[in-house]
Amino acid sequence: MNIVVQNIERADEAVIQGLGECGVATVHEAQGRKGLMASYMRPIYPGARIAASAVTALAPPGDNWMLHVAIEQVKQGDAIVLAPTSPNEDGYFGDLLATSLKARGGRGAVVETGVRDVREITAMQCPVWSKAIFAQGTIKETLGSVNVPIVCAGVQVEPGDVIVADDDGVCVVRREEAPEALEKARMRMVAEEEKRKRLAAGDLSLDLYGMRKRLAERGLKYV
Amino acid sequence: MNIVVQNIERADEAVIQGLGECGVATVHEAQGRKGLMASYMRPIYPGARIAASAVTALAPPGDNWMLHVAIEQVKQGDAIVLAPTSPNEDGYFGDLLATSLKARGGRGAVVETGVRDVREITAMQCPVWSKAIFAQGTIKETLGSVNVPIVCAGVQVEPGDVIVADDDGVCVVRREEAPEALEKARMRMVAEEEKRKRLAAGDLSLDLYGMRKRLAERGLKYV
Amino acid sequence: MNIVVQNIERADEAVIQGLGECGVATVHEAQGRKGLMASYMRPIYPGARIAASAVTALAPPGDNWMLHVAIEQVKQGDAIVLAPTSPNEDGYFGDLLATSLKARGGRGAVVETGVRDVREITAMQCPVWSKAIFAQGTIKETLGSVNVPIVCAGVQVEPGDVIVADDDGVCVVRREEAPEALEKARMRMVAEEEKRKRLAAGDLSLDLYGMRKRLAERGLKYV
Amino acid sequence: MNIVVQNIERADEAVIQGLGECGVATVHEAQGRKGLMASYMRPIYPGARIAASAVTALAPPGDNWMLHVAIEQVKQGDAIVLAPTSPNEDGYFGDLLATSLKARGGRGAVVETGVRDVREITAMQCPVWSKAIFAQGTIKETLGSVNVPIVCAGVQVEPGDVIVADDDGVCVVRREEAPEALEKARMRMVAEEEKRKRLAAGDLSLDLYGMRKRLAERGLKYV
Amino acid sequence: MNIVVQNIERADEAVIQGLGECGVATVHEAQGRKGLMASYMRPIYPGARIAASAVTALAPPGDNWMLHVAIEQVKQGDAIVLAPTSPNEDGYFGDLLATSLKARGGRGAVVETGVRDVREITAMQCPVWSKAIFAQGTIKETLGSVNVPIVCAGVQVEPGDVIVADDDGVCVVRREEAPEALEKARMRMVAEEEKRKRLAAGDLSLDLYGMRKRLAERGLKYV
Amino acid sequence: MNIVVQNIERADEAVIQGLGECGVATVHEAQGRKGLMASYMRPIYPGARIAASAVTALAPPGDNWMLHVAIEQVKQGDAIVLAPTSPNEDGYFGDLLATSLKARGGRGAVVETGVRDVREITAMQCPVWSKAIFAQGTIKETLGSVNVPIVCAGVQVEPGDVIVADDDGVCVVRREEAPEALEKARMRMVAEEEKRKRLAAGDLSLDLYGMRKRLAERGLKYV
Repeated sequence: MNIVVQNIERADEAVIQGLGECGVATVHEAQGRKGLMASYMRPIYPGARIAASAVTALAPPGDNWMLHVAIEQVKQGDAIVLAPTSPNEDGYFGDLLATSLKARGGRGAVVETGVRDVREITAMQCPVWSKAIFAQGTIKETLGSVNVPIVCAGVQVEPGDVIVADDDGVCVVRREEAPEALEKARMRMVAEEEKRKRLAAGDLSLDLYGMRKRLAERGLKYV
Repeated sequence: MNIVVQNIERADEAVIQGLGECGVATVHEAQGRKGLMASYMRPIYPGARIAASAVTALAPPGDNWMLHVAIEQVKQGDAIVLAPTSPNEDGYFGDLLATSLKARGGRGAVVETGVRDVREITAMQCPVWSKAIFAQGTIKETLGSVNVPIVCAGVQVEPGDVIVADDDGVCVVRREEAPEALEKARMRMVAEEEKRKRLAAGDLSLDLYGMRKRLAERGLKYV
Repeated sequence: MNIVVQNIERADEAVIQGLGECGVATVHEAQGRKGLMASYMRPIYPGARIAASAVTALAPPGDNWMLHVAIEQVKQGDAIVLAPTSPNEDGYFGDLLATSLKARGGRGAVVETGVRDVREITAMQCPVWSKAIFAQGTIKETLGSVNVPIVCAGVQVEPGDVIVADDDGVCVVRREEAPEALEKARMRMVAEEEKRKRLAAGDLSLDLYGMRKRLAERGLKYV
Repeated sequence: MNIVVQNIERADEAVIQGLGECGVATVHEAQGRKGLMASYMRPIYPGARIAASAVTALAPPGDNWMLHVAIEQVKQGDAIVLAPTSPNEDGYFGDLLATSLKARGGRGAVVETGVRDVREITAMQCPVWSKAIFAQGTIKETLGSVNVPIVCAGVQVEPGDVIVADDDGVCVVRREEAPEALEKARMRMVAEEEKRKRLAAGDLSLDLYGMRKRLAERGLKYV
Repeated sequence: MNIVVQNIERADEAVIQGLGECGVATVHEAQGRKGLMASYMRPIYPGARIAASAVTALAPPGDNWMLHVAIEQVKQGDAIVLAPTSPNEDGYFGDLLATSLKARGGRGAVVETGVRDVREITAMQCPVWSKAIFAQGTIKETLGSVNVPIVCAGVQVEPGDVIVADDDGVCVVRREEAPEALEKARMRMVAEEEKRKRLAAGDLSLDLYGMRKRLAERGLKYV
Repeated sequence: MNIVVQNIERADEAVIQGLGECGVATVHEAQGRKGLMASYMRPIYPGARIAASAVTALAPPGDNWMLHVAIEQVKQGDAIVLAPTSPNEDGYFGDLLATSLKARGGRGAVVETGVRDVREITAMQCPVWSKAIFAQGTIKETLGSVNVPIVCAGVQVEPGDVIVADDDGVCVVRREEAPEALEKARMRMVAEEEKRKRLAAGDLSLDLYGMRKRLAERGLKYV
């Protein structure tokens, strides 16, 4: 059955923004090392960085019709997250969809497929994380669904989940766990800042983290 | 039999230039979604963009002798397109070949192998699309051929075909089909420009393309 | 047995610096086309370029404890070279380790795993060559070894070997062969500079290298 | 938080057996083309064929401790389904675990990692579907969870879901949808048997499915 | 434009049979080491061995409609050769198509996609060479073409070309070159049989092929 | 410099045979989980199982000349271990080399390249572990070396090292460590046999290995 879920709940915008400031690695750690998409999901240009609510799409191989349907569901602050029903690297997302996405207030796209028109999309600073850059055209023949749970690049994504994406990849935060994840992420950032200063001053993590005793107990020999 | 075909026909320079302005994605679409090389063919630096006549080369694994032969066949406005006789990522193309290629008026290279000296080649703005960046040295021991039909990254390429390459990858246009491809590509660009404006203004592609009726007929349910 | 070798010999700093100026492709050629790591070892930002003494580390999959141990062994001018005991792309190296590495005078890292915090590491210009960019967290539970011989990305690396790394990848020079490699690399650079000028002036490598006779003997036909 | 869920619901054994008789391709189709694991999940020997209730396990890279925990949760008719927290091909499952699994009445294992001792496991006819065959040893240091929802080879798996696996791969059926899936699968088998006879007799699917008109309408030309 | 070419020329059946007896490796060598498909094209069961005339098909990703069209074009002694318009591993070919193919006198299939129902297809001894085994269902929505030139697994295939396939993979012989290829292949087999006897008797290829002098000239040192 | 080392030391035949009886997984464990080649090294037929002394060969991409040289160095009980100087899957090893290898008393081959004539080689029961099955022909133009240290599939191999290979892959044992590895492997087999009996009788490894207390201490919760 092919459906479009129109009303989805989203996390609080302040929480989303906060998670974006923490970044992928920190958020992934803060929520217990889960939610990280596969390493083949890469940004099309360096420096891209977003946090957004997921509008999900599930689409057949080589068919991007559902992206057009998904765009209508995008609200200010959303990102489209697309998974194909079988592995496919065709160019589902291009500059026209990017133009439309931006016009709707969308923050970017995460597609476990290919993307094209990367020059133009880069110029309009519409960040996209994808499995490939590939100009191969897609068709509009077969239905999928929008705003249903999907598995994208190895991670279960529910509509309204928070997507955090930067140069390190893409991390998904359950909508209902977002406030707690943010709290933990901020604590981690504070703790890391302290460590960073000490490490920059020449302290060793072996001492900072008190690892020497445990290393010796495990049997590490210095020769 | 190992041969070098010395006189090849080329497309009209204005047509070639025109195709370059349209870019890979548009040209690929305009000619019926064919001619696109595999997604692993990537430019060594962002922003590279060429259109050129193909001087083809077929070479054994780990042996770049035929590139030296091919350079002599390069005329102003050509690009070298190299396929290995079996998969190989060695560094067939480096800064000396790039220097020579530029001196001959060549516009770039498309090699289904590795490339090296990418710092230097980037500095001289000689764009290369390759399967890998790999410094592995090659030898000059075994013959191949120059300006024969080859299959490069999944696409049949004839000498004199038009190569369009940019951040989206590499597309091949049959020499004899180039004028028609250009015409269609330009029409497509005009049509897209119009759509882009309307999408930027907030129109939805669902309306722009009149998709709603067909979606409903196919059974898409909004819930 | 898990050990940390504390005193390793290093090559002469002038030799190391010299090799760095020659770059990966030249050094790889100069030493007889050996020592080159697999093409999947890529820098996290373009333009990075180092030569350094290897402090090696061997670590279990998903466990970066030994990197913390290795940092203490880093002296001015060193680079960490890490191999996992089985293939793994987790984020072993991040911005805190980079901060510590820089504080110790380290020049960079070569990890046959993943790296994370690439935005921050790029900002601090701490070059890293890795198999992947992946934020996946690692643990500190199981011992490995530091400054033992390892195989990293297909190349045997001894502690104290010279690591040359740039946009073309990573090349390893045996410590005891470094002076000879440098000498040959410099000779190669001089020879190439000469060739480069002639090629830039329009000479063909077919003539420069005297290849025409041998091509004919092998049976190449011009048609 | 690391947990072991001890009481899970399972589908009716008759339904499970029925799905097993239908096989992967038929069940996948019958339930709307969903639930199919990635094509890299392959059986260790040809002809293996099971249907079973999933006991799920989530484990860190290179650490098979949770498989030992999972075995205790196995009841007659179950299969273990394992996903690593990051990609890993180590030999999590070997002949001792297979011995224990068989002793508990388990039907097989589906591991998105490596398996080893395949000669012995084949001899005992304990079917395993895995991402790789790899003897690399694993440790028992870090907790994961048992009988929690996991994503294995691209598919969300809940404990108690039905696993259908044969030479074509692995398909997951939601526990609560299993009866309906079986019903549809059986209808499909009946329909296919009829088609098979007619095709074997020389009828063409073009006629059997009445495709000729639609092909013509779409514009297919016979020349 | 989507077309079905109905009348294609085929090579002489005796020539086809002869090539089949020579096998992939010998035929590939005999015709100058060309025509060999990529190594990822593997038979679904060991021992399969065919030679046949190619009925080619070009089809969109995830859409096997054109296979149904192609079956009608199959005559006694043909094999279907399928390339997708972009990379795809879905299960285009299954047991119903195999049943129909056999009923038409077809000898097998070569699909640069996935295949499913491999247990059943193996049981009916209908050999298939494919890129993957994958149960993923396909649709019948979009046209492609039948009996047009395609590039399959890196090799240009014309309708009517001779397909030789066995445990070593798949090799394509141009229809018009088939008689000469067979003649050379047979000569090669005779020559190899002679060598095989001498090697089995303990002679060394170094002597049999007179390689020692050339090795010494090239500088090989025995130490 | 290209050399052939003629006199290499080998491990004691009884030790080699003993290691072969233990198999890859056990030997790999017994020697501290090292020496295991990458998982892409697969046997060409199931059930193959050897232990042998390594005659090593290093050869350029697409050039198997050194295999012919290596064969002469093979003595009763040896296996050839081949690494290419850059990644290559061509068919270096075929039935003529297999015939010669068998005539010399060789036990098999381990090639980090392709192999061809697998039907014939299987028929003569000459086991080969390879990266690929690929009929692509190789040349005999460029020197490499024989019986020098190589890195094959990620593992350093010295001439005379013991190669253990079976369905689980390939493991390398340092010649000088072979007796100790055998002793440990046998102890492990005895210990495993005991465990196997208890597990077959229904005991759980949680109890057999006394894991429950440590799991609880680490915080595993049963719910």
